[in-house]
Amino acid sequence: MAKPLTVTLDLESVLIPEIWQAVAEATGLPDLAVTTCDIADYGNLMAMRITCLRENKIELLDISQTIQAIEPLPGAAKFLYWLRARTQAIIVSDTFYEFAVPLMMKLDYPSLFCNSLILDAHGYISDYRLRHKAGKRNAVENLQNMGFRVFAVGDSYNDLEMLNAADFGVLFRPAKSLVAECPKFQIFNEYSELKNCLSQILSGEKC
Amino acid sequence: MAKPLTVTLDLESVLIPEIWQAVAEATGLPDLAVTTCDIADYGNLMAMRITCLRENKIELLDISQTIQAIEPLPGAAKFLYWLRARTQAIIVSDTFYEFAVPLMMKLDYPSLFCNSLILDAHGYISDYRLRHKAGKRNAVENLQNMGFRVFAVGDSYNDLEMLNAADFGVLFRPAKSLVAECPKFQIFNEYSELKNCLSQILSGEKC
Repeated sequence: MAKPLTVTLDLESVLIPEIWQAVAEATGLPDLAVTTCDIADYGNLMAMRITCLRENKIELLDISQTIQAIEPLPGAAKFLYWLRARTQAIIVSDTFYEFAVPLMMKLDYPSLFCNSLILDAHGYISDYRLRHKAGKRNAVENLQNMGFRVFAVGDSYNDLEMLNAADFGVLFRPAKSLVAECPKFQIFNEYSELKNCLSQILSGEKC
Repeated sequence: MAKPLTVTLDLESVLIPEIWQAVAEATGLPDLAVTTCDIADYGNLMAMRITCLRENKIELLDISQTIQAIEPLPGAAKFLYWLRARTQAIIVSDTFYEFAVPLMMKLDYPSLFCNSLILDAHGYISDYRLRHKAGKRNAVENLQNMGFRVFAVGDSYNDLEMLNAADFGVLFRPAKSLVAECPKFQIFNEYSELKNCLSQILSGEKC
């Protein structure tokens, strides 16, 4: 008999839009739209974002208002509900609790494993704390240590370690460049395709 | 800055009534009301239950109907909703997915780490599979490996390893015999007390 299944899902671009992009649009600050595609070092990227926010007097509370207006991707909430009625689902993300929590209400509060922001006395973001230096892979490995098979869903470079560590790893709406580099992962573009694959695995067939 | 918090909660007697007791009442079979207080060895207890069900021609589907009629304890769903809006909550239970899933809908599908039943071709329970031989303690330890502080809530002897492993361990409506044996754990009898304690921890004070 197979071990029980847990599905780990990336958050941004899999269930909700990219948060920093939404903040960049709302504030009109193009520096905030920069991603790890532009600045590969995450520490440098975050340092630049934190400086940009402070220089423009944007506090966490201002960002929270922008984030509260974000809606999950069309079909995402329904897909997640379908999934949680059938197996375990945990969102594993590089975002921050302080950003994501207003959005979790719109997804009926699924479990979320992510990082934390550090604020200064004035409400500005001053630093951040990673839950673990390889948080996504680490989540998969610890779930496996708990006796689960893990099905991981991601869309981007920072998901590859998670997909590689998982028992099943699939890409959801990945960038074309990633597809060319990672031919080994199955690719899905619709939640209905993910549901079909997961239904097969849950019924004991291989997707 | 403190690590993020995950609350691990036992299920039966903490959020819902005892499942085997409900099945014993519905079937009128006192053997099914026997617990680890009566037969300490869990393997022997489960073997007795499985034999009793088969002898009385009770399939999983029959049990599922009984379980579907169970309601969460008064206030439990509201408490869990409050908790999930503030931090991570995972139910860590010795029950089986096949038993608990119909009840999870009534709690808005929280994450559930538990065990699995094995059915024979006729729909009878023939065996079970533990997620891990020390599933509750193992869950706490792996969550800690993921970078979380863990606040564990249990009511019974089989929760003590979980409470001991956790950063914070509390008893909720425990049996009097357990209270006498375990004076080190804080005891709460109402969800409002748990909420107060958790609010203090989440705001950086110690409960």
